Amino acid sequence: MKLGPLALTLGEPAGVGPEIIVKAWNQLRAGGPPFVVVGDFQSLAAASSAGSAILRRVISPEDAPRLFPDALPVLDIPLQAPVVAGRPSPAAAPQVVRWIETAVGLALSGAVSGLVTAPIAKAPLYAAGFKFPGHTEFLGELTAAANYDGARGPIMMLAVPGLRTTLVTIHEPISRVPALLTIERIVNAGLVTAQALRRDFGVAAPRLAVAGLNPHAGESGSLGREEIEIVGPAIRALKDLGVDASGPWPSDTLFPEETRRRYDAALCLYHDQALIPVKMLDFWGGVNVTLGLPIVRTSPDHGTAFDIAGRGVARPESLIAAIRLADEIARRRAG
Amino acid sequence: MKLGPLALTLGEPAGVGPEIIVKAWNQLRAGGPPFVVVGDFQSLAAASSAGSAILRRVISPEDAPRLFPDALPVLDIPLQAPVVAGRPSPAAAPQVVRWIETAVGLALSGAVSGLVTAPIAKAPLYAAGFKFPGHTEFLGELTAAANYDGARGPIMMLAVPGLRTTLVTIHEPISRVPALLTIERIVNAGLVTAQALRRDFGVAAPRLAVAGLNPHAGESGSLGREEIEIVGPAIRALKDLGVDASGPWPSDTLFPEETRRRYDAALCLYHDQALIPVKMLDFWGGVNVTLGLPIVRTSPDHGTAFDIAGRGVARPESLIAAIRLADEIARRRAG
Repeated sequence: MKLGPLALTLGEPAGVGPEIIVKAWNQLRAGGPPFVVVGDFQSLAAASSAGSAILRRVISPEDAPRLFPDALPVLDIPLQAPVVAGRPSPAAAPQVVRWIETAVGLALSGAVSGLVTAPIAKAPLYAAGFKFPGHTEFLGELTAAANYDGARGPIMMLAVPGLRTTLVTIHEPISRVPALLTIERIVNAGLVTAQALRRDFGVAAPRLAVAGLNPHAGESGSLGREEIEIVGPAIRALKDLGVDASGPWPSDTLFPEETRRRYDAALCLYHDQALIPVKMLDFWGGVNVTLGLPIVRTSPDHGTAFDIAGRGVARPESLIAAIRLADEIARRRAG
Repeated sequence: MKLGPLALTLGEPAGVGPEIIVKAWNQLRAGGPPFVVVGDFQSLAAASSAGSAILRRVISPEDAPRLFPDALPVLDIPLQAPVVAGRPSPAAAPQVVRWIETAVGLALSGAVSGLVTAPIAKAPLYAAGFKFPGHTEFLGELTAAANYDGARGPIMMLAVPGLRTTLVTIHEPISRVPALLTIERIVNAGLVTAQALRRDFGVAAPRLAVAGLNPHAGESGSLGREEIEIVGPAIRALKDLGVDASGPWPSDTLFPEETRRRYDAALCLYHDQALIPVKMLDFWGGVNVTLGLPIVRTSPDHGTAFDIAGRGVARPESLIAAIRLADEIARRRAG
């Protein structure tokens, strides 16, 4: 099966997305993987020192790989009004959403091999009526009707060299986390993670390490009971389902190098439990992967960075890593 | 002023304490800093391959420095019955407590320059009626009546090369942490930390970085309000009191190397927020320092490790680092 290019959504046009996309193309044009941007042509032209000279509008993604060494292919869905870097506007929100919807459609149809999303800004989307906490949940909704064999996400993975983590809760206040943890939720995250490690990452016999919630993983119940009542039973259920899961481990013992060698993914219960080690290991190159979807989707693990947008200093490492990883996963899924 | 030796409490006699104390003495006997063990002579003899030949009972700590290159000085307060490595017993608890009380008395009197505590086990102490969550709180109580100039702890610091963290809450279930965070508590931790950095660590103009509680430090209130209602006001209060405090920072951005260079201590709100980065940076050599006490006190940042006790494999790095740091602090306090 011949794989199409990746689709790269522009994301928030007033953020660093346009400039890091141009930088990523510059670094990848010679060797690939090729991609087509789904977004606003003018925003990309404004973010490039060469202006529109390096850009090329395409009608179909299938033209992208051939053009890619010479020009950045753009499937142009224009903004109604130009935006200024650093100044997000709810006026752009409908197009930001349309770019994502279009790219998902292309991925579901097989016209592109997967999706890489540049960061979006939540405030202007919410102001315009967007109803999802973020990309991940929106993609879950957009792909809900598509066939998918196995445990279903979306589950967020953050990956850096030497560590893969998946999250049971993501953007939740700490005060809500204990109530959100259920056996069912942890089991689902574990199943989706194990399946993705096999299918998307080529790990034949994946080992999951499940973190505890409390200090010392609750110290036999004296520092919290979630390990006994929720996390422990979830791990036993995962084992019954054939998943090589261990824990609950005290989260401070889970991320030193000699521990990380013993598992293929750490299942984390809350955002910073995963993000503290991820950012320490690789502040610039982390990749966010959405597991358990019918389509391949990755993104950089940073935000829109309005404070530096338009100044040309934003770093493309994380986006480039996201593009490379999406390509690897797409190839593995295609077999 | 001539400084006395350090006092090293034996801690849980069935844990790794005795063997790592003997190992630490072997590594430090030539160059110091000298210390005297407050504990059970026979437990140390059992943990040494040379038996009691390397031990020497002393009546007073002042004899310890002279003996130290040739023998490990012990202020012997014997157990009523011998213990077996790996098998803790509540029967030892009264002596474990007495060793600590004795060493604190020696420190308050100036007979020793400071206190290093080998790990204790909570379960046997609790079974015997011990009423404190741990060493730190017990030491706070034992020294409460002593004069001390400035902001009072106890506040726990964990220090490794490249990172010092202090904790606003310590051994608390995550579900309790949000309710325990108050402006007053954070301000006190900040004042104690800033004072200790100057007095104990020789940092003339200490910079504190205060972590947020929630993902993205609450993202302007949309992912939790503690940053707006508690942590932010505490930071402003600290600034009003002359402390160079910044934040609340998203905790995932606080520990990469380039961020760590910008502060002298990170004020963390819960256990694993501090311990995940500490253990990643140095799994074996972390030191626990109790700030804001009239006496100097450090300890290794590991536990009793019953699973490996008595096998000779326990590593003394953390204890040795704790001894060296206690000595440095004692010298600085002595001026």
